[in-house]
Amino acid sequence: MSETIPHWLTKQAFLAPNKTAIELENGDTISFLELKERSMRFAKQLAQTGISKGDHVGILSTNNVSMVVAIHSLSYLGAVSVMLNTRLTKQELDYQVRDADVTTVLTSEQFKEINFSIPVKSFFEIEQYLEKPIKLQSVMNLEDTFTIIYTSGTTGFPKGVIHTIGNHWWSSIGSALNLGLDHKDKWLAVLPIFHVGGLSIFIRSVIYGIPVYLVEKFDEKVVHEAILTKGVTIVSVVTVMLHRLGEYLGDNRYPDSFRCMLLGGGPAPKPLLEKAKVQHIPVFQSYGMTETSSQIVTLSPSDALEKLGSSGKPLFPAQLKIDGPKGDIGEIMVKGAMVTSGYYKNPKATDIAITDGWLSTGDLGFEDKDGFLYVVDRRKDLIISGGENVYPSEIESVLMEMEGINEVGVVGRKDNLWGQVPVAFIVLKDRSVYQDDILVFAEKRLAKYKIPKQIFFVDELPRNASNKLVRAKLENMLDKK
Amino acid sequence: MSETIPHWLTKQAFLAPNKTAIELENGDTISFLELKERSMRFAKQLAQTGISKGDHVGILSTNNVSMVVAIHSLSYLGAVSVMLNTRLTKQELDYQVRDADVTTVLTSEQFKEINFSIPVKSFFEIEQYLEKPIKLQSVMNLEDTFTIIYTSGTTGFPKGVIHTIGNHWWSSIGSALNLGLDHKDKWLAVLPIFHVGGLSIFIRSVIYGIPVYLVEKFDEKVVHEAILTKGVTIVSVVTVMLHRLGEYLGDNRYPDSFRCMLLGGGPAPKPLLEKAKVQHIPVFQSYGMTETSSQIVTLSPSDALEKLGSSGKPLFPAQLKIDGPKGDIGEIMVKGAMVTSGYYKNPKATDIAITDGWLSTGDLGFEDKDGFLYVVDRRKDLIISGGENVYPSEIESVLMEMEGINEVGVVGRKDNLWGQVPVAFIVLKDRSVYQDDILVFAEKRLAKYKIPKQIFFVDELPRNASNKLVRAKLENMLDKK
Repeated sequence: MSETIPHWLTKQAFLAPNKTAIELENGDTISFLELKERSMRFAKQLAQTGISKGDHVGILSTNNVSMVVAIHSLSYLGAVSVMLNTRLTKQELDYQVRDADVTTVLTSEQFKEINFSIPVKSFFEIEQYLEKPIKLQSVMNLEDTFTIIYTSGTTGFPKGVIHTIGNHWWSSIGSALNLGLDHKDKWLAVLPIFHVGGLSIFIRSVIYGIPVYLVEKFDEKVVHEAILTKGVTIVSVVTVMLHRLGEYLGDNRYPDSFRCMLLGGGPAPKPLLEKAKVQHIPVFQSYGMTETSSQIVTLSPSDALEKLGSSGKPLFPAQLKIDGPKGDIGEIMVKGAMVTSGYYKNPKATDIAITDGWLSTGDLGFEDKDGFLYVVDRRKDLIISGGENVYPSEIESVLMEMEGINEVGVVGRKDNLWGQVPVAFIVLKDRSVYQDDILVFAEKRLAKYKIPKQIFFVDELPRNASNKLVRAKLENMLDKK
Repeated sequence: MSETIPHWLTKQAFLAPNKTAIELENGDTISFLELKERSMRFAKQLAQTGISKGDHVGILSTNNVSMVVAIHSLSYLGAVSVMLNTRLTKQELDYQVRDADVTTVLTSEQFKEINFSIPVKSFFEIEQYLEKPIKLQSVMNLEDTFTIIYTSGTTGFPKGVIHTIGNHWWSSIGSALNLGLDHKDKWLAVLPIFHVGGLSIFIRSVIYGIPVYLVEKFDEKVVHEAILTKGVTIVSVVTVMLHRLGEYLGDNRYPDSFRCMLLGGGPAPKPLLEKAKVQHIPVFQSYGMTETSSQIVTLSPSDALEKLGSSGKPLFPAQLKIDGPKGDIGEIMVKGAMVTSGYYKNPKATDIAITDGWLSTGDLGFEDKDGFLYVVDRRKDLIISGGENVYPSEIESVLMEMEGINEVGVVGRKDNLWGQVPVAFIVLKDRSVYQDDILVFAEKRLAKYKIPKQIFFVDELPRNASNKLVRAKLENMLDKK
C-alpha cells in the first residue's frame, strides 16, 4: 500500500504556525506559516508558466530562502526539483538538464543569464507573475519523486539519483531516532542545498518543526558565532569545515546546548577527530551519499570515545552488510527506505548498483566485532601496489598528524614495477617542513609500500562544492606532471 | 512498495545492547540485549509447540515481563499476538479466540486453568521446553500483522482490530514527532498491555531505545514515587488515574524532568484538567482508540493554557476532519498510516468504518478556528431530548465541579414525553451532599433539558480494564431500577 501523509509544510504550518522555520544571518526570521504561504504563492505563480504535476524543474542557486521556497513550491505542484550544482561547467549542466528531462530552470539572480535550450527564469522573475488559481497538493504520496540529484559514479556520466518523498521522510525519521528530537533544536545549514546533505536539513526542519539557521556561504567565524550566540544546537559539516572551526575555537568551548556537529562527506582524518575530542566538540561522524538521502550510518559522541574513526552503526530503519568474509574489508552494502530506488532513466546503472534493495556503495569498509562500521576508502580510490591494498585515506590520516602539514591528498600513480604506487599532494602550514622530514615521519609509521613515492607541494587541494577532496582532479594533475 | 525494517528489538539490542529496556518495581532491570535474547529463546521454545509464521496466538495475562517477552517472541516467529482482556467472561473470551482463529493461548500462571477448546500454555510451561533450532525473522515487513485487539463496537459483537507492524511503527513515529525524543526518557507503563495504550509503550521503548518502568497494577503511591525517585519522564494515564495522582500530589510538585502525563481513554472532565494545570502537571490530553493504534490527536501543555479541554491537533502523519458543516459538531474522521486497515474477517464492518482510508470513529466533536479538536462525546452516548442534543460528558464535567462529588456517569433514559432524558449516577466523597443540593447546583449551570431527571447514588461506577466509564453498564443498571 502506498502511504500518504499530509503535505509536510502545510502540516507544520498548521501545528506550529508562528514558530520560526528559517532564521537568517541578518536576524530576519520566517515562520512556518509564512514559509507555507510564500511557497503556495510561488507555486501559483509558477503555474502561470505552465509548470504542472510531474514536470521536472531545474534549480540552480546558491543557498538562499528563495531557493527553499522554490523547492517547496514545486512539491505543491507535484513537480520534481532537479538540483543543479552551481560549480558545474555549462557543458555539465547541459548534460544534466537534458538527461533529467528538465523543462524549465529556476535560478537565483546571478545565474539567470545562462543560456539553456529551455526556458530559464529567476526566482525574482517568477515572483512578478500573477497567481494562477489552481488547487495545490494537500497530501504527499511517499512514492512520488521529490528531487533528482546527480552524482558522479565510478565510471561514465553522472547519474540522476531519484529521491522519493518517502526517501526523504525516512531519512529524517532515521536521523531523529538516532539524534533524538528536541523542539528547542536549531539546525545550522551551510552545506550547499543542491547537495542532499544541505537539502535534508530543510526537510527535517519541516518534519520536526525546528528552525534552520541559514548561512549562505561557509565562514568559520559566522558559524562559530551562531553556535555561541544564536542558540544553534546542531550543525552539519564536512571535514574541512570541522578543521577550520576547530582552529577557530582554539582553547574555547562551545556551550552545552550545542549538542551535535554532524560530520559527513567522506572519511575523516583521525588527528582531526582526536583534536575535536580534546576540544569537547560533540562530533557525530556519519556515512552517507546522495543515494542514501544523506547519512545512513552515524556514530554518537558517547561511542566515539571507544570507537574513534568509526562511522558508527546504521540508523534504525537501515541495514548494513559488508560484501565479503566476516571482519574483512569489503564493499559496503546498505538497505533501507531512505535508499534510492534507482537512477533516472538509467535501468542499467540501477541494476548494477541495487540488488534486492541492497545498494552497492562502491566504498570499502569493515565492521568491528561490535558492529561498528569503519569506512576505509572509495573502492575506485584504492591503490593496488605489488598486490597489496593501499588506502589513500590511511596515508592521508598519518601525514595529517605531522606538525606543519595542513592538508593531504593521496592518489595512485601507474608504476611499471608495482602496478601502482602512492603519491601525495600536500598543503603546508608554513615553509619549515621539507620533503625529507615528511618521508622520515612516514617511514616510522607506515609500511614501506604505503610510503608516498613522490610528494608534490601545492597551495590548495581540489575540492568540490561540498568541500570534499576530488581525487580524480589530483590524478589529472599527476598526468600533467 | 512494501517497506521492510530490521526487526526492531534485534536492532535496538544492536544499537544499545546494555541500555535498560524494562525496569521493574523491585529495581530489577532487563537490558535490550537480554530482552532480545530472552525473546529469541522463548520463540524457539514456542516453535516446539508447533507455532509458526502466520499463526494467531492468544495472550491472556496481567502486566508482566513474560507477557512482553511473549509478544516479541511471536514477532520473531512471524506469528500474530491476539491480545485478550483479562476482565472478560469465559464466554466473551471464547468468542474472541474463535473469531480470531487463535490456535494456542499463552497465559500468566493465574489463567492457565482456563479451559479453551484449543491448547492453553502458561509462559512458565513454555520456558521448560527445549529450543527448536529454527531461523527467526530478522526483518519486519510493515504490512505484516503484529497484533489483533478486540474492541466493542456501537452494535453487535466485538471486532478484531488488525494492527500491522507499520501501524505500530507510524504510531510510534507520530508520537515522537509530537512529544520529542530524548534518549534519557523513561516511560512508565501501568495501563493494561492487552489494550493498545499499554502495548504501544513497549513498542515505542524498542523503537526509541528508552526504558519502560513497568508497574503491574495501578497504585497512585507507586506511580507517584516512580516519578519522584525513579527518573520517570513520561506516564500514560486515563482520567481516573490522573484524578488519583492529583489528589495524592496535593500541594507538591513533580520534578522538572517529568515532562509528560499522556492522558487518553476518553474525554476528560474540565475540572480535572483545571486542577492539573494548577498543580503544574504537564498533561498532554490525547484522543485515540484501538483502531488508531493509540493516540492520533494530542494537545501539548503549552497549547493547553489556551485550549483547555481540547484534544489538540492530529499527529504529524495523521489527518482529521469533521463530517458536517465547518465549525459544527459532527462525527470525527481520521486517516493516517497508524490507522488500522480493518477488522479481522469482517469486511462488512470494515466497509462501514473505513472509506478511502478515512476511519469513522463514532465519536462526535468539532474543530475550533485554529484547528484544535474538541471531542464532545461518543455518538452512541448522545442523548436526544425533545430534539435537543445532550452530551453526557458535558453534564458529567459540570457536576464534577461540585464539592463533595467524586465521580459522575450520565446516560439517557427513555421518556414518553421527551424521547430521552438525562439521568446521573453519582459517587459521593462523603454523605454531606444531598440530591437537592446537586439539582440547585445544576440548575445554575445547565440548560433545563440538560438537568438530570433522576440521580442515583452509587458506591462506584462501572469501568473497563482501562478504567474507562462503561455507559452501557449504567444503562443496564437503569433497566433494572
